[in-house]
Amino acid sequence: MLTNLDRLHDRMAAIPADAVIGTMPENVLYLSGLWAMTQWIRRGPQAYALHPAPGRGTSCVVVGASAADHLTDGSAWVTEAYLHGRFPAEVIAGDAEGDAFAALLAQEPFADPIAALAAALRDRGLARARIAVDEVGLMPGHWQALAALLPEAVLLPAAAVLRDVRAVKTEEEVRRLRMAAEVAERSVTAALAIAREGVTEEELIRAFDARTVAEGGQPVLRCIGFGPRSALPNVVPSRRALRPGEVIRFDAGGRWGHYRADIARCAVLGEPSPRLRQVQRAIRAGLDRAHELARPGMRCAELFADVMETVRREGLPEYRREHVGHGIGLDGYDAPLLGPSSTEVLEAGMVLCVETPFYTLGAFGLQVEDTLVVREGGAESFMTTPADLVSV
Amino acid sequence: MLTNLDRLHDRMAAIPADAVIGTMPENVLYLSGLWAMTQWIRRGPQAYALHPAPGRGTSCVVVGASAADHLTDGSAWVTEAYLHGRFPAEVIAGDAEGDAFAALLAQEPFADPIAALAAALRDRGLARARIAVDEVGLMPGHWQALAALLPEAVLLPAAAVLRDVRAVKTEEEVRRLRMAAEVAERSVTAALAIAREGVTEEELIRAFDARTVAEGGQPVLRCIGFGPRSALPNVVPSRRALRPGEVIRFDAGGRWGHYRADIARCAVLGEPSPRLRQVQRAIRAGLDRAHELARPGMRCAELFADVMETVRREGLPEYRREHVGHGIGLDGYDAPLLGPSSTEVLEAGMVLCVETPFYTLGAFGLQVEDTLVVREGGAESFMTTPADLVSV
Repeated sequence: MLTNLDRLHDRMAAIPADAVIGTMPENVLYLSGLWAMTQWIRRGPQAYALHPAPGRGTSCVVVGASAADHLTDGSAWVTEAYLHGRFPAEVIAGDAEGDAFAALLAQEPFADPIAALAAALRDRGLARARIAVDEVGLMPGHWQALAALLPEAVLLPAAAVLRDVRAVKTEEEVRRLRMAAEVAERSVTAALAIAREGVTEEELIRAFDARTVAEGGQPVLRCIGFGPRSALPNVVPSRRALRPGEVIRFDAGGRWGHYRADIARCAVLGEPSPRLRQVQRAIRAGLDRAHELARPGMRCAELFADVMETVRREGLPEYRREHVGHGIGLDGYDAPLLGPSSTEVLEAGMVLCVETPFYTLGAFGLQVEDTLVVREGGAESFMTTPADLVSV
Repeated sequence: MLTNLDRLHDRMAAIPADAVIGTMPENVLYLSGLWAMTQWIRRGPQAYALHPAPGRGTSCVVVGASAADHLTDGSAWVTEAYLHGRFPAEVIAGDAEGDAFAALLAQEPFADPIAALAAALRDRGLARARIAVDEVGLMPGHWQALAALLPEAVLLPAAAVLRDVRAVKTEEEVRRLRMAAEVAERSVTAALAIAREGVTEEELIRAFDARTVAEGGQPVLRCIGFGPRSALPNVVPSRRALRPGEVIRFDAGGRWGHYRADIARCAVLGEPSPRLRQVQRAIRAGLDRAHELARPGMRCAELFADVMETVRREGLPEYRREHVGHGIGLDGYDAPLLGPSSTEVLEAGMVLCVETPFYTLGAFGLQVEDTLVVREGGAESFMTTPADLVSV
């Protein structure tokens, strides 16, 4: 199970809500284990996870009939389902997954996902309850349709609450995030292994992607830029060839076990210039300071201010930045945000990307970004290589 | 440029609308060339493309300051931008991309994307116009916020209209879709090259992914199942090992140049059983019939009925199916749908996935799925290998 049940139930009690419904793919997976492919690779297909408060009934999912086979391979811990639509198939009994799928398909399906969701709520005696609904995964009109089917229910928005719940990871989530970070790190190393004069950004990203998929990951964040292009924060790898003295900036990471990675490393072809050394020293000091400060009870705004001050003191007095990191999980930007206006406080179990990038448009970008988990005793880094400016 | 401008302007005139606004990532890219990474890899980040009717002003985009570098590498043909948020950076002049990004960042940013969009509309004299807004990419509350900022404008939903516009591809889109299909085909071939007794589904998907990324594509649709698992339509590759006589079913395809592939091929380890031969013959006859029927003027419902009748006549009298294919483009399910209730009519330039899968839960699934473009003279297939049931 991925869910932080204690935190979820605490937040549900605080609303208060008798049930919470996940609709974004991240929240459906988080609440039920259902990874419904279509809602991850397209916008529109609907799948939901319904999680009643303790004592208010069983959890269930709403899913299209043609995607209900996702409930049969053991990856979802919630397998009670309300189906919509039809999936025609012959059946020969005797195979566990086939039998489970056939049993689901034998149910009378609902005409649409909202009708199925309303039935699931009614079946649990929740038609007059307070229901927190993740508003982000619904399509326009769905909220109103649900309200019309359950006129006595109170519908409340849940996306922010679920984001807050997801901020403190369970150990299974930590395990996956560590693996995702390690795969990203090894993919950077694999790409750097072919770095030489004349290599292109495209060649490096292919080496990066190759390593990620060889480890069972999927490429997602894929920024690799050379020279002045390293200063483009979202640089899309091109046929630009690497020249002596140029920076290579990676801001990259895929998914592993559905969990995201986001790390940054930089290299230089040859020896770094004095300016590069100066910038690297300052941003690296900021990164190291973030590792030191990341402990339970630390206010995110305070961490931000301290890291910014460190970078400025250590060589970049002009350093400006909107944030110095963020949570990571099923989403690439989970809570909390390590920014000046953040009201969040670090807790044990939060997994953070800490970063202090510096961009000089027209010249270079240098970025260091690590991933760590906040433990009772302080930060435990997922990284196995230091955030050095490597010479290749 | 990707946009089918004639069709877009025709549909805008029919609404009628003075401007159309893309908000889903697919529609932003389609209308402007802006591929704003954050809106593709997360839910929430907002970027918009505003396309006024001919004579009503210039096109522009709305994008976060930290993502505005996407406008500098030549991939977007619309580069006039309204920014929201801030991105701190130093500037050294003299690099084209850096200078372009710096010029964008020198603009005074708006507080949020809806404020930027409203300003873009006001600047074009469209504050009292009829505006078709793609409702799917907005976050909850955004529609109402835009309406509040432009109380005299008439806002109309645009997602269905843009989907209809995108159904007829431009030649650049056809080129990318052909390449995506070919990469998928070569990736299937690469995976089948390692198929032998004892190989796992995971090993095959890694070989598939490796080939896709080696060609500059990105894996998206990744279903590979063996034996009874080949009957699970969304099968997630597992450690299940291949046994003699078992079917291997691929339903797979990535993105290439942002465009999607979706093809299906099957193989069997050893010689196919008489039942497999019978099913393959029938579904292949249906697929071949779909190729024959795919020409301008053909009603999708008629094509569906004819293909279903063909499969039933050629060996599967019990064949049932909700559709026999769909369009493909930036979305994996573009219009039209080749289903019984479809009111759509094929037109030259539509790119279709035609498919006749057959699933026996507990035993096997067989699927043939090709991609083709409808030309004046009939279907032009993108496939270079026949949809045979290959023995490995």
